[in-house]
Amino acid sequence: MEPPRLVYIVTGNEGKFREASRILGEYGIEARQARLVKVEIQSDRLEDIALKAARIAYVQLRRPLIVEDAGLFIDSLRGFPGPYSDYVYRTIGIEGILNLLQGRGRSACFRSAVAYVAPMAEKVFSGEVCGRIAEEPRGSEGFGFDPIFIPEGYSQTFAELGIGVKNRVSHRAQALRKLASWLVGAAHTGGW
Amino acid sequence: MEPPRLVYIVTGNEGKFREASRILGEYGIEARQARLVKVEIQSDRLEDIALKAARIAYVQLRRPLIVEDAGLFIDSLRGFPGPYSDYVYRTIGIEGILNLLQGRGRSACFRSAVAYVAPMAEKVFSGEVCGRIAEEPRGSEGFGFDPIFIPEGYSQTFAELGIGVKNRVSHRAQALRKLASWLVGAAHTGGW
Repeated sequence: MEPPRLVYIVTGNEGKFREASRILGEYGIEARQARLVKVEIQSDRLEDIALKAARIAYVQLRRPLIVEDAGLFIDSLRGFPGPYSDYVYRTIGIEGILNLLQGRGRSACFRSAVAYVAPMAEKVFSGEVCGRIAEEPRGSEGFGFDPIFIPEGYSQTFAELGIGVKNRVSHRAQALRKLASWLVGAAHTGGW
Repeated sequence: MEPPRLVYIVTGNEGKFREASRILGEYGIEARQARLVKVEIQSDRLEDIALKAARIAYVQLRRPLIVEDAGLFIDSLRGFPGPYSDYVYRTIGIEGILNLLQGRGRSACFRSAVAYVAPMAEKVFSGEVCGRIAEEPRGSEGFGFDPIFIPEGYSQTFAELGIGVKNRVSHRAQALRKLASWLVGAAHTGGW
């Protein structure tokens, strides 16, 4: 059986869609952007947020779809901004995060949860990349907190490294690659 | 017709329940605490969060109930921490807020939305109290960001002023008094 040809990605974030569609493309999966209003619950668990949002989106779209939720978890801030990274980015921004980190530990992880909902299938995959928060923003690629996140093993930020490196190591890339492998495998065995 | 005798308040926050039940009591309304798991959506509008949480709680409880959602909106931080005040309190806390405000304007408002759902009735009331963020935490009453919020016309924080003053001027008190007046009035006219 052929792998699935088409999956909808529910997001209003063009940067996220660009990253995700490129990864899925490597597995022969075409991605289309669905600009539905995403209903996200408040939870400390990204997996819950993504899965519930995907279920609600599925009721509207009735097509195989993905909702991805991600966050930056900073150890010395008890995980803040975590699941609320988008809101925090829109309000206190990068400058606020750097202020909060003065005199504190800078280790942090980006985490991602990708929820897939389709007729007869529902599955969540997670990914994580750890590293540290830079002293100041650097680079212009990517989006969100990319200019201040330096992944382990690198000296540049995600925004300096660009989409090529980011899509090899990022939290989102890991979660999406797990999903893509599962989809391709499931298609071959007729499991979905 | 008699005013309603009994309303459930869906909250795990004892401080919030204490404040609310005392206010409703002034109107002859008995409050009981319902410790359901509250499902809150992510939204910049407290009214949406409270109403959707109340609808979901009602499906479980099937009794007249209230869900209250509140937040501290700081002007110079573009409204942060806003609807995510609980999460921000649990992570970066009061210290984090004070760090973020160094060298910035300190005007802020506490806002509250109270959603009431009952058989044949659904209504949301809002309240707001403005003031400023103190230079350092003071006082031990109340909860959350009370030790750093000084309401307009006072020089002490909510945590210093205590529940008596807080229940005269607070955002939550205003929203609850609107609800209580409506309940009592509606009961008299047979409107619910």
